[in-house]
Amino acid sequence: MDTLELGSRTFAISRAQKQDVPKIVALLADDVLGRDREGQNLEPYEQAFARISRDENQLLLAVRDEEEALIATMQLTLMPSLSRGGATRLQIEAVRVAASTRGSGLGAALFEWAHRWGRGHGAQLAQLTTDASRTDAQRFYTKLGYAPSHVGFKLPL
Amino acid sequence: MDTLELGSRTFAISRAQKQDVPKIVALLADDVLGRDREGQNLEPYEQAFARISRDENQLLLAVRDEEEALIATMQLTLMPSLSRGGATRLQIEAVRVAASTRGSGLGAALFEWAHRWGRGHGAQLAQLTTDASRTDAQRFYTKLGYAPSHVGFKLPL
Repeated sequence: MDTLELGSRTFAISRAQKQDVPKIVALLADDVLGRDREGQNLEPYEQAFARISRDENQLLLAVRDEEEALIATMQLTLMPSLSRGGATRLQIEAVRVAASTRGSGLGAALFEWAHRWGRGHGAQLAQLTTDASRTDAQRFYTKLGYAPSHVGFKLPL
Repeated sequence: MDTLELGSRTFAISRAQKQDVPKIVALLADDVLGRDREGQNLEPYEQAFARISRDENQLLLAVRDEEEALIATMQLTLMPSLSRGGATRLQIEAVRVAASTRGSGLGAALFEWAHRWGRGHGAQLAQLTTDASRTDAQRFYTKLGYAPSHVGFKLPL
C-alpha cells in the first residue's frame, strides 16, 4: 500500500488482513494497560476484524519492517459530522509501535502518514484520546502539534 | 422512533431528516464554543448530513418537544475495534440540549436512551470527549457514571 523511508530503514504500511489479527492483538497486549485488557481467545478479535472490514470508513493498519515482522498498528476511522462546519473527523485509535522499534521515528512518520490519508479522504480534524497515565504519549502528541484541549470520558455499557 | 416520558413532559426521539439540518445547526451554534465554530452557509452541513446518512454506523438524533420544536440533538457512532477484547465502541459527539429545556432531566434521559441503543447494537463501551472548559458538562458525565480517564487531543488537518 505504501512505504515509509526512515534513514536506512524501510517500513511497509498496508491494510491489515485477517491473518494479521493474532500479531496485532499481541502488539495491543504488549502494553502496560493493554496487558490487562486483552485476552487469549482470538475469536472475539476475528469477529471484530470482520466488522472493521465491512465498514468502509475504517482502516486498520499493519506496519512491517524489512523482515516482514508486524511492528506497528493503528486504527483510523472517518467520522462525518455536522459540528465544526460539517467537518469530517479522523479518529485515531489503538496505536501501538513495538518496543523494539521505538526511537526510530516510526511513530511520528506513521502519524504524518495517517494525517495525509485523512486529508485525502476529506477529514479536517484529527482526534484521539490517551489514558491520563500515559505522560510520554501526551508529550509525543503535543510535539506532533495536537492540543490537549479535551477531557475523555469512558463508560462500560 | 421512540419517546421519552419525563414527569408531565413527552419528548420524541427520531433519526434526523434533511429538513432538520438548519435547526440542528442552530442548536450547535447556540453554545459558548459553538458560536465561533459554526457558519451561516448551510451547504457544507447538508453535504455532511448526506455523508452521515450514507454511513450505517451513524445515528444523528433529533429530539422534539410536545410542540414539535427540535430541542436536542446528539450524534452516535458505532466503532468496531480490535482493542479491549474486540470491543465495539459507542462514540457520542455533538450533544446539545436547548437552553429552554435544560433542567428537565432530558439530557440524562437522552444519554440513557443512547446507552440502550448502543448496547442493542453490540457496543460494550461508550466514549466521548468534552472541552476542558466545560466543567458543568464534566460534572454531568461523572454523575452519569463516566470516568474522566483520558486526555482528548485534537489537530486541524
